[in-house]
Amino acid sequence: MRHLLLVAHGSRREASNEEVRQLAASLAPRAQGRFDAVSCAFLEIAAPSIPEGIDAAVRSGAGEVVVLPYFLSAGRHVAEDIPREVEAKQHEYPRVRIQVTPYLGLAGGVAEILLSLADARG
Amino acid sequence: MRHLLLVAHGSRREASNEEVRQLAASLAPRAQGRFDAVSCAFLEIAAPSIPEGIDAAVRSGAGEVVVLPYFLSAGRHVAEDIPREVEAKQHEYPRVRIQVTPYLGLAGGVAEILLSLADARG
Repeated sequence: MRHLLLVAHGSRREASNEEVRQLAASLAPRAQGRFDAVSCAFLEIAAPSIPEGIDAAVRSGAGEVVVLPYFLSAGRHVAEDIPREVEAKQHEYPRVRIQVTPYLGLAGGVAEILLSLADARG
Repeated sequence: MRHLLLVAHGSRREASNEEVRQLAASLAPRAQGRFDAVSCAFLEIAAPSIPEGIDAAVRSGAGEVVVLPYFLSAGRHVAEDIPREVEAKQHEYPRVRIQVTPYLGLAGGVAEILLSLADARG
């Protein structure tokens, strides 16, 4: 089983965390055939944490977990904190393949989305 | 003249601010015909600030400024801080049309980009 784990920063504003949970839920049906499950986790403040999110994925039978940083820039969180937490879990679950993708901000399509947003209002 | 102003949070990590500046620069040629100029500004920490970014756009001849929040969630910054700063500048420049677009996280295409990132690594 393959599991997609969307990882966001986490906010003191619960509505922002809820947005991330809804985004993860909205990805699930579109990811069918590629991922058996989609969930989210938070680096700080909100629950579940990244270790908790990976634990839950493994408990539900994931043999592969793809961690996707929902971040716009490569700050310390993306460069150090997320890899460190993932690496610790990889040691704990040596038979599960856990990978981290590039963060959202790095994706080529972001520029096109920005221009679409700008056009809609321009 | 129409000006697109990409507004990011601003980071203590200068490389993150530089990424935003490069993104704005990369948008400029693609925005041709729709926007005459593209620049960026930061809500906190980095320069230029939002007022400074709008000032510069108006000084360079913009009759319309489209402010695009480069944010993933609608926290206080997107809901209150950016509109407040824009509104103050709108009062200062009544002849310039200044608009704020929805923030990036709200754009429909983000889900597709996330799935593409996940697929590339899956």
